[in-house]
Order: sequence, then C-alpha cells, then structure tokens
Amino acid sequence: MKKPADTQAPVPAVACLALGLMLAQPLWAQGPNNTPLREGTVKAAVAIDPGLFERQMSLIDKRRASWLEKAEQATPELIRTVKKPVAVITVTNDPASFQGWKTGSAAAVMSVYDRPLKPGDSFILDFGEHLAGQLILSLRDFDIPVDAPVRLALVFGEVLAEVTEPFDPYTGGLTRAWLQDETVNVDVVPQTVRLPRRYAFRYAKVTVVSCSTHGKFGFSGIQAEAVTSADERKLLPFTPRDADEAALDRVARATLRDCMQTVFEDGPKRDRRLWLGDLRLQALANYATYRNYGLVKRSLYILAGTATDKGLVSTCALEQPKPVRGGNSILDYTALFAPTVLEYLEASGDRQTAEDLWPLVLKQLDFTLEPVNGEGLFITPKGWWCFIDWHRTLDKQASEHAIVLFGLKATQRLAEKLGRTTETAFIPEIVTRMESAARKHLWDESRGLFVSGPGREVSWASQAWMTLAGVPSPEQTRRAMSGVIRLPSAEKPVTPYMNHYVVEALLAAGLKEDADRLLRDYWGGMLKKGADTFWEVYVPGDDFLSPYKSHLMNSYCHAWSCTPTYLLRKQP
Amino acid sequence: MKKPADTQAPVPAVACLALGLMLAQPLWAQGPNNTPLREGTVKAAVAIDPGLFERQMSLIDKRRASWLEKAEQATPELIRTVKKPVAVITVTNDPASFQGWKTGSAAAVMSVYDRPLKPGDSFILDFGEHLAGQLILSLRDFDIPVDAPVRLALVFGEVLAEVTEPFDPYTGGLTRAWLQDETVNVDVVPQTVRLPRRYAFRYAKVTVVSCSTHGKFGFSGIQAEAVTSADERKLLPFTPRDADEAALDRVARATLRDCMQTVFEDGPKRDRRLWLGDLRLQALANYATYRNYGLVKRSLYILAGTATDKGLVSTCALEQPKPVRGGNSILDYTALFAPTVLEYLEASGDRQTAEDLWPLVLKQLDFTLEPVNGEGLFITPKGWWCFIDWHRTLDKQASEHAIVLFGLKATQRLAEKLGRTTETAFIPEIVTRMESAARKHLWDESRGLFVSGPGREVSWASQAWMTLAGVPSPEQTRRAMSGVIRLPSAEKPVTPYMNHYVVEALLAAGLKEDADRLLRDYWGGMLKKGADTFWEVYVPGDDFLSPYKSHLMNSYCHAWSCTPTYLLRKQP
Repeated sequence: MKKPADTQAPVPAVACLALGLMLAQPLWAQGPNNTPLREGTVKAAVAIDPGLFERQMSLIDKRRASWLEKAEQATPELIRTVKKPVAVITVTNDPASFQGWKTGSAAAVMSVYDRPLKPGDSFILDFGEHLAGQLILSLRDFDIPVDAPVRLALVFGEVLAEVTEPFDPYTGGLTRAWLQDETVNVDVVPQTVRLPRRYAFRYAKVTVVSCSTHGKFGFSGIQAEAVTSADERKLLPFTPRDADEAALDRVARATLRDCMQTVFEDGPKRDRRLWLGDLRLQALANYATYRNYGLVKRSLYILAGTATDKGLVSTCALEQPKPVRGGNSILDYTALFAPTVLEYLEASGDRQTAEDLWPLVLKQLDFTLEPVNGEGLFITPKGWWCFIDWHRTLDKQASEHAIVLFGLKATQRLAEKLGRTTETAFIPEIVTRMESAARKHLWDESRGLFVSGPGREVSWASQAWMTLAGVPSPEQTRRAMSGVIRLPSAEKPVTPYMNHYVVEALLAAGLKEDADRLLRDYWGGMLKKGADTFWEVYVPGDDFLSPYKSHLMNSYCHAWSCTPTYLLRKQP
Repeated sequence: MKKPADTQAPVPAVACLALGLMLAQPLWAQGPNNTPLREGTVKAAVAIDPGLFERQMSLIDKRRASWLEKAEQATPELIRTVKKPVAVITVTNDPASFQGWKTGSAAAVMSVYDRPLKPGDSFILDFGEHLAGQLILSLRDFDIPVDAPVRLALVFGEVLAEVTEPFDPYTGGLTRAWLQDETVNVDVVPQTVRLPRRYAFRYAKVTVVSCSTHGKFGFSGIQAEAVTSADERKLLPFTPRDADEAALDRVARATLRDCMQTVFEDGPKRDRRLWLGDLRLQALANYATYRNYGLVKRSLYILAGTATDKGLVSTCALEQPKPVRGGNSILDYTALFAPTVLEYLEASGDRQTAEDLWPLVLKQLDFTLEPVNGEGLFITPKGWWCFIDWHRTLDKQASEHAIVLFGLKATQRLAEKLGRTTETAFIPEIVTRMESAARKHLWDESRGLFVSGPGREVSWASQAWMTLAGVPSPEQTRRAMSGVIRLPSAEKPVTPYMNHYVVEALLAAGLKEDADRLLRDYWGGMLKKGADTFWEVYVPGDDFLSPYKSHLMNSYCHAWSCTPTYLLRKQP
C-alpha cells in the first residue's frame, strides 16, 4: 500500500481522487435506476442486540495496551545475510528496455577495489538481486595516510533508472526524502563503515565527492547485509510446472521476503509501513511459503493495539519508535480484518490470538455496516477512504458492497470456529439482505455483469469482489468473470493488488486457464521487463506510470505484488 | 599546524613554497658574503662517538611498539558537557565586522522549538561560545504521525561566514570535505539523533531539505555535547590585571581546551592532528593551566612510537584508527622534540618517560645536525620542509640555525637531568661552533640585527629564534629585538605560532612592555574582531587571508594560537 497523505504539494491526481471521495458528498444518494433508497442503515433495520458493539468496545479498551505488549513480545529476530556485489556496471539508454535503461557493460567488482580514488570517481555496483539491508564500506589507505575526510555520495536503486537519472530537481508528489540518496563523510581511514539506514536496492552508485588527493583512499571491499524475517529454511517446497512458473515464484518470494521485516512492510523502500490490506495478501503468501506465523501475529496485534478510541482497527500503522496508528482509514481494509484473523487462525491454529482479537473483529461491523442502507445496499459514504485500486475513475460501490459482505461472512465463520455465534445471530439476516440488494441493484442479468454507481459502470473489480463475496451463482460467476475480461470497455485494474483479487476470482469461477493467463501475462510482464521483485505499480504499456508523478518514487518491491507465490501454490 | 599536502590541485602558494624548499636545490651553497663553505658536516668535524646514533637506533627499534602501548594506556577520558544554544540569530552584512558579517537579530531558541517545520525552513543557532562536540537533535511529531523521512542540511561554523556564505562552488586549496556540512536523513520520528561526527563550532545552521507536509515534524530540543580532555577543576588560578588580560586568557584557554582531545590536536575543525611544533606550545599552555600531564605523555609517545625506521620522530601523526606517521617532516619541529621532552620532565616530574624517550631525543641530532656544516653554520637543506612560519618569502636559514641550536642545548640540559652527559660529550663543542658561526655569518654588528640567507634578510623570526637560542649577548638581544620590531622593512610574522616566539623573545630580552604590547595588539586584535577562540591565521588588515585560498577553510580554533594563557602567566 502507499498513502496519498505524505505529500509535497501538489497532491497527486490519484490521491486527489481518494481524498475527494473522503471529503466530498457521495456522488449519488439514490439507488441504481434512480430508485429512492430506504432510509436508515441495515444495523437499525435488523434486530442487533442494542448493547453489542458497546460491550465489544469495553473489551477493546481493556485489551489495547496488552495487544501492544503481545506485539512487542512477538517481534521476530531478523536474519542477516552478507550479500556481495556481483559486478560493476555501466547503464546505457535503450528504448526497448524498462524505462529506457539497460545494463551496458559489466566488469569484475575487483576492478574498483584496492585502487586510489579521486574526486569525481564514480561507479555502480550491481548486487545481482534485490535486497533490503545496510551497506558496509571498507575504506583503505595506501602508502600515505589519508589526511582529510572522505565525502561520498551514494544512491541506491531498485531499478536502473534510480541510479541513472538525476533525482533533482524533484517535482514528484511524495516527500523527496524517500529517494534513496545519501552523503556520507568518513573522518577516519582505514575504517569499515556500516551505514546506519536500511535501503532497498539491487544497485548502489558510489561517487567520490571530495577527498585528499595526497593521502589517497580506496575501497578494500563493499558489501551489503540483507535483513529479513523470512527464514529460507522454513520455506515450503513447490514444484513449478515450467520455467515461467519458477520465475514467477522466485520473484514473488523475493518480494515477500524483502517486505518481511519486524512487521509486514508494504515496501522496504517506501513507505515501510504495515497496511491491513497489504498484510492480508502477505499473510496468505507467507502461509504458503515461509510460515512466519509470529510475524502475522505481531502485525495483527499492532493494528489492533493502535485501534482508535472508537474501536476502529488501524488501516495502517507506523512501527517505530513505538506503534502508532497512521492517519488514514480505508473502509475496504477495515472489512478485511475479519478475513485476516480468520485465515491466521486457520493457518497457524493459534486460537488464543483469535479469541483475544474477537471483540475487535466483531466491532468492525459497527463501521463497515454503517454505509449499508436498510435494504442492504452499500451507499458510498463520505468520511471514508474507499480504496479498492489506484484506478483514477473507478466507481467503487459494487466492490465495497462486496468487500463488506465478504468481511461479514468471514466474521460469521470466525464466530463459528470460536463458538461465538450467539453474538453474531444478526449476521445471517444482513447477509441475506446484502446479497438480495446486490442482485437487485448491482446485477445486470441481461449483460451477465455487475454494475456499479449511477453510471452502471462495469469493472473487473466489481465482478471479482462480488465473486469472492459469493453473491453470484456459480453460473453467474462464470458469466461475469469470463465476460468482463473479454469486454474491452470494462474498467481494468491498475495495481497488482487488484489484479490479485481478479486472479483469485477467476480461480473461484473455475476459469483456471484465464487465471493462469492473467498471472503469466500481468506478473510475467514485469518479469519480461527485468523485475527482480514485483512492483507497486504496473500497467502494461506505461513504464513511467506513477501515483506520485515520478517513476523514481515508485516502490519496485511492493508487498501487494507478492501473491503469485500463493496463487501458483493454490492452483489445483 | 596545517599541512600543505592534503590538497586539491592547485596546491596553494604557500604550500608550493614549502614544497619548493623540500624539492629544489638550496637557493645558495655559499656562505654569506659569498664565502665558500667548509666541506662536510659538523657531525664529521667533531669527535662524536662513531657508533652513538646506531646504538640509539637499536634502542628505538626495540621500544617503538611499547611506546605506542604506553600511548594507548595514557588515553585520557573525555569530559562531556551539555551545551545549549543561547539564541536563534540572523546574519547581516556589515563591512566593519570581521569578514563582513555580524549577528543581525537574535531571538529566543524556543522560537524554533515545538512548531511544525516545512521544507525550506532554516535557522541558525548560536551556542554563545566555541565548542568541539556532537550535535544532538530531538525531533518530535504533532497530531499526525510523521509519515516520511526527514532530510536536514546542517552547516557548522566557527565564524559567521561559514554559516552565511555558500560553500560551493569551492575553489580553495584543501579538500572540500573539511568544510563542516552534513546531510542527515531521519527515518523515525519522534527520535533523538546524536550525529556521529564531532564538529568545531559556535554556530549551527539547520535547514529542512525535505519532509512530509502532512505528518509534520519539529524540534523539541537541540543541544550539543562538548568534549575535551581539559578538566576545569584542575585549572590553575590566574589573576588578570585588567579586562583585556582576562579576555585574552579566557579565549586562549578556550582555544587550548577545544584542541585538547585524546591528543593535542592542532585544530578541532581541521586537521585534528597531532603536530610536534604545535604540541610544544600546547604543552606549555597546559602546564600553566589544566595540567593534563597524561595527555602530553600520550602525545609524546605517539610521535615517538610512529618514528620512522631511521629514527626520525614524527612531525605529525594521525591518531585514528591507530597512530600513524603523517607524511611531512619539518626540520624545525624535529629540533623541538628535545625541548618538549625536557619541559615535560620539568613540569610533570615524570622521569621514567623522559628516560624511556632519551634514545629518540638523542637520535634527532643525527638529523638536525646534518645540514650544519663543519664550521657550524646551518645550510638550508633540500629534502626537508623548513617551516618557521607560513610567511610567503621568509628566508629561514637564521631561524633554522637557531632552532637546531636551541634543540641541541635542550638535549644537553636533558642529559644533565638524566645523568647521561657521557653520551652528549660532543654537544658543547658543536654549541660553540654554531654560536660562533652564527655570530660570524648571521650577525650584523653595524645594524645590531641578525641576517639570513644570501639577501641578508632581516626578519622578526631570525631575531626571535637567535634570542631564544641564546646566541646574542643580553645587550645584543635587546638591540636585535627592540630594533627589529621598530624596523618597517623587517619581515614580520604571519601566524600566531611565530608571533608567540617573538613575544617569548621580547620577554627574554627584558622588553616586557614590547612583549605586552604585541600580545595585546596581535591576539587582542582577534578579540576585537569577535574571536571566541584564537585563529590559525591572523594578519591585521586582511580578514580573508588563507593558506588555502579560502577563508572558509581556515581553522578558527587553532592550537598554536593558545599561548596567551601561558605568556600572561609567565610574565613577572
């Protein structure tokens, strides 16, 4: 995930859209076909125990501090691995390559070691793979002592553009400080310097800004120490059917691995935060691979322990120096809390954590059902960020309707597992209303497609989420999913995040070949462009698309892109 | 001290001069008045035990490693003191002020604390005094979590020019990296960040380069931790006769204090190294004030332990990561090793160290007597850096002659104290020859002045050093010293280092009023210009003079300027 709020003016267009949805009146206050909506909410229309959500809140109030303690106790140890650069490279322009850059020549790393360097000397190290970690520079002297500080400029890049194109003047939308450059002064040589910050990179450009030309310095070695909480020894085996699957799995795992730190980060370059929606996908990929259940537990407890005073689970949380809630609230992420806890219980068997978090899971319905009217139809609310995808104009009503329903069903299933169904006695009736309302207002039987909003927009997102929420019949599911991906006018996803749910929905619809094709076409498209890890943003045909008006700001190792490793292993 | 070798091309003019003297043939190979010089050296002409210097070398060889161990054991503990800024200032142009800058307005430091900052915000903190130490920044958040790294640009200044004039483009002579600026990225807020490097400064300019404009940060506090090995509790009392003396003493002590680290550094800004000639003056000032004998011991042992394989004591040494000899060899500094050890013995009573270092003291004569011809006259040699002063054209023959003699006499006096006079039996005869040669070739009785070189140049340096070496009679001393300071055509000193020896010589000549006037005029001139510590370079009338073609590169807290505290206390 990334957030639109950390911005330099002007706010990027997609962020404006999201903020607009948060701040403006809903675009329409009538149902499809201009039918007037019933007044009131589904919470009022259905006989919910009137004190239920208040009782949950009382439990949440008592537990929040202990949840943060449990998060602290579950902090995983980071696994540190030395990574050595594999080549010194040059970069050349090539219109056929990703973003116009390709590796020109490659020389042995030794060629930059053990030789005196002078101001202006510069080289790019290629570590051969993406990593999140620290750089360690060993500086040496020669026959004359190094008699002045050494000033180095360092630039770290996940992709070649970052170590090739100048960062300044920066006109993008997020804080310039996210771009990974650094000026380092070394007073004492010889010395091995470990840079204190963690960077996400495959490439490191080293430039000598200033140094003595009398007492010269050089490098005796440069290496990185990669950090992750993914333990390769615990990796579940997987037998790919072909080289493409092997590559998809490898790159997806690398993406997951580098986002697995002391929380599931959304991206190790940016913004390094724990986002609930991203967490769900990472957790699913993690259960299929590294099985670090403690990291999911810690992440859940951080989001729970930083819930608002009104009991709203955090959409995102900052981890350091102590966990704190991020400023955004995404309604669809809130609805995904129940599925995430349910899937954690199913994967780990950790019933204690699920029971501990149960009051918070149930409490989220107080929020997600608020925009559902008495008839059971989701009305896009003001005051919420409805995310779904970074798509610029997507109508989100149908998708949000489906996700709220998806979360409702997961809550019920969790209640069954925990023996709490007396508390969720109201859910079945709301499920029925929401399914009926969806079929009545959001399903176009003549087209065999779900529609969304006053413009009756048809999108992949609406079909996928309705499918995953179990609204359409199996036959309708196949029609909707098969139809939408063949409908040129349908709104397509723009993020790997939304593409994931489309693949899941295709699999759910039994459209295995279509699912497989999308997986190979979409994520495989990044592979063809040389991805070492999967990206935050990928729309075939536009290498420079960025929600931040700068492809240099994009994250090229982004958690929500890591799911091919899960999807491949899930395929029958 | 500073060295010309740490240079970006082009080498500064004064350094060129010094290097020229090292590399070129001596300017003249004949005595004054074109009298041919006797062949051979005074070492050959006098009956020195032929195996003497070889035996010393054998002892040195055995002891060098243990000397470095003793240096290590004598490492002083640094005293750390929190220093808080006293004001936030603006700087305005004022032709009447030092280098054209003066403090404009001053506001309370609180005015920059606890308020959200944005990119471009900038302020200058005034710590009210010079210090060597680390900066500690406490960053805080406000109502929204800080959701992006904070990038700060910091500039540290000993004088206002450094925090006011841009450093780039830099066209000066030494490595640009000496200029104290830094870019700092802070990933986690709130956090208190201690910058790892030590800076020398009174002023710190803080500029926000980049930060989130959504989750804003600010400072809750900024402070410095000053470090020194000077212990104020051990300071010897001194009663100044007037406010001027009080100010001279205070600023001189601050200069000494900030240069007293784990060695006597020449300047805490640059080049932070231990130089033998500077050490002697610092040690003298230290005996009169902070009495840190251990620091002198450590410094002596470092210079001894890094002596060359031929037994030449280090002219300068780098301390970290382990002591190593700097690349330069200054003949006059070599000659000052014996006086420095002698004075250490006299001040500290540490006979063991003096005995331990005795072979090295004696061995230095093997080098300093080499350029002395059989007649006893010093002939400016090639292959040596003869320093004396940063003066651009100064003829150094007379001064070097005197310093070699000064060192010779100190060696003899040390031998007497240590009961080693059998080893120095040759010294008296050489002293006689050198005094005679000086009187014959370098003394102009008609003018009552010492002359130097083929041009028979008259300089303050020649008179001062001949006086301190005890060559002239008391009457001649008064004539020479009184005469030269009233002779407009005489070459004057350009550094505080050489000015110190002039004051000492005036005192030795009994010219107390002249000594007092020079002290008050020269160092007092720096005070009038607002000096918090005394400078590396000061020539009245030129605020911008620099051996490095950049006044920004000059050190404004320089050890060799610290002696007023010694000279004031030495006055009867």
